[in-house]
Amino acid sequence: MSLSKIGEFGLISMLRELCQSQSRDVLIGMGDDSAAISPFRGTTLITSDMLLEGVHFDLSFITFFQLGYKSLAVSLSDIFAMGGRPRYFLMNLGLPPGFDSRDIREIYRGIKEMARKAGVVVIGGDTCESRHGLVLSGTLIGDTDRAITRSGARPGDGIFVTGTLGDSAMGLVLLKELGRRIEIQSSRSRRRFRIRGIEFPAKDILPLLKKHLMPEPVPLKDLSGVTSMIDISDGLLIDLSHICDESKVGAIIYEDKIPLSLELIKAAETIGVDPLKLAMKGGEDYVLLFTAPPDIKTDAIMIGEVVKKGRFIVDNKGRRARFKAEGFEHFKEQRL
Amino acid sequence: MSLSKIGEFGLISMLRELCQSQSRDVLIGMGDDSAAISPFRGTTLITSDMLLEGVHFDLSFITFFQLGYKSLAVSLSDIFAMGGRPRYFLMNLGLPPGFDSRDIREIYRGIKEMARKAGVVVIGGDTCESRHGLVLSGTLIGDTDRAITRSGARPGDGIFVTGTLGDSAMGLVLLKELGRRIEIQSSRSRRRFRIRGIEFPAKDILPLLKKHLMPEPVPLKDLSGVTSMIDISDGLLIDLSHICDESKVGAIIYEDKIPLSLELIKAAETIGVDPLKLAMKGGEDYVLLFTAPPDIKTDAIMIGEVVKKGRFIVDNKGRRARFKAEGFEHFKEQRL
Repeated sequence: MSLSKIGEFGLISMLRELCQSQSRDVLIGMGDDSAAISPFRGTTLITSDMLLEGVHFDLSFITFFQLGYKSLAVSLSDIFAMGGRPRYFLMNLGLPPGFDSRDIREIYRGIKEMARKAGVVVIGGDTCESRHGLVLSGTLIGDTDRAITRSGARPGDGIFVTGTLGDSAMGLVLLKELGRRIEIQSSRSRRRFRIRGIEFPAKDILPLLKKHLMPEPVPLKDLSGVTSMIDISDGLLIDLSHICDESKVGAIIYEDKIPLSLELIKAAETIGVDPLKLAMKGGEDYVLLFTAPPDIKTDAIMIGEVVKKGRFIVDNKGRRARFKAEGFEHFKEQRL
Repeated sequence: MSLSKIGEFGLISMLRELCQSQSRDVLIGMGDDSAAISPFRGTTLITSDMLLEGVHFDLSFITFFQLGYKSLAVSLSDIFAMGGRPRYFLMNLGLPPGFDSRDIREIYRGIKEMARKAGVVVIGGDTCESRHGLVLSGTLIGDTDRAITRSGARPGDGIFVTGTLGDSAMGLVLLKELGRRIEIQSSRSRRRFRIRGIEFPAKDILPLLKKHLMPEPVPLKDLSGVTSMIDISDGLLIDLSHICDESKVGAIIYEDKIPLSLELIKAAETIGVDPLKLAMKGGEDYVLLFTAPPDIKTDAIMIGEVVKKGRFIVDNKGRRARFKAEGFEHFKEQRL
């Protein structure tokens, strides 16, 4: 039903029903002047992200369900990057007139699916009309016993990542090639995708699309020894530069240690792009980048080490090159 | 300087400098993956409001300073409506390309001025590019020993408001008549305003404009006896209806008890509108509406009483009329 039919208060009733809270800690959920939750024991973490149509997403390539899912995922990633446990989520929605209530249900179905997986409770938010595109602005509250910042890296630490890089950027390239929204089902699907005249089985394509459309941030289970942490949202080189800036240290990373998925390598070859470039500059990976003594026990992949000064990439022939914070930066004039 | 020159990270540096936190409870402010604050003793309150250009504000009528100020004020009002103390504010900004950094400084100057008055610390937020208009999405965190909801009103309670109503709506009418942005200085200003051929001294006009452009929500100091509370943002009749709905009670209000300012009465006469209509349906008053036993000690004005059933307005001749939730509602098709 069109929003102009159900009205703002009809919408709020619908959202209240969609967000019936199951948690005893939520004293007041959606529908009052503010939400109320029981006190935390640890430090409270708060992160807030805005997703704007035409800037962060294009409805030709993402479904409402995927958008809802992703809107929480990007904030989860920030809480995990602080070593935190995510708890409560508020979503502010700016909706174009004529927006359909079914689409809002789909956005909330996505939010709730991600929330369920992450153990997060959706507690409220503001809804209003938008004259232009769809606007999502989510706020995620979490807590932690020890907040891990970007500023604790020490020379001698290893530099680690918790997953493969570049998949999300490749996923976006593929979506643009395909030119339509793709439902992500099981990667064992029998569907085939035609890209630049070549037929790909679903198992080669869907994992890359999923990393872009429905990223699933995973926390670092054992935080002992971790000296600094950030999530890779803007791209490895930019986000590593943030750690270098804040910790006042340098870094050396090794190209041949950067984890690439087989799907990325295969798709990159077909499209004719450099997979390492996507891995270093692509962004939206939503994996964690952290520093810790090189001998810690971890499943994460060590890709380099913290040094006193300078920022270097070493290629597979042992040649060093300096790197700068490069990748996607909002507002900056781009020289293409 | 244009944002396309300073870039996103230049902007974040600027905002960090603008939001240098003075509070010991802010463990991590702007610039990391999320903000971190010390645990609260009481219940944590969270409220989130979105302000969209062309829907909630028109830059022909409001300055960037006023907009920043108001963006925090509307959330303050929500925290006060829960009986809470406001503490920490995060602001997400969606900025059109070519937006000037001076204008952002003005928005933050407004936020910080309101924050200073309210004892609130600005701790972070997200900034990104917007393809269309300016987007502000603020989240305010507070705490309270006792959260006061909309659902505790009991038959026999008095219905109280903490200030005059309709001024903000009149202020908006006047702004549209004046057709320009107005700096709010002292109301003792010697400026004169020409409206419909009549000259008004500043003291008659500025208080009304101020209520619209720079509302200053005030908490209820003594909460003892208060059974339910809401802030008047959508209009007295709508917001009172929310209390009736949530508390499952009725209400009688008396027209001649509704507090109107002399400025409103005077301006309404000139423009030829009914001041009571503005007071009951105008909205954006950001005063508190609460219920409590009629004999409590308070400076607030009693405008009616809670009854078991029915919603009535009594006019100055003692005639009863039923009222419905009326006023500004987003999305709903309006019959004019």
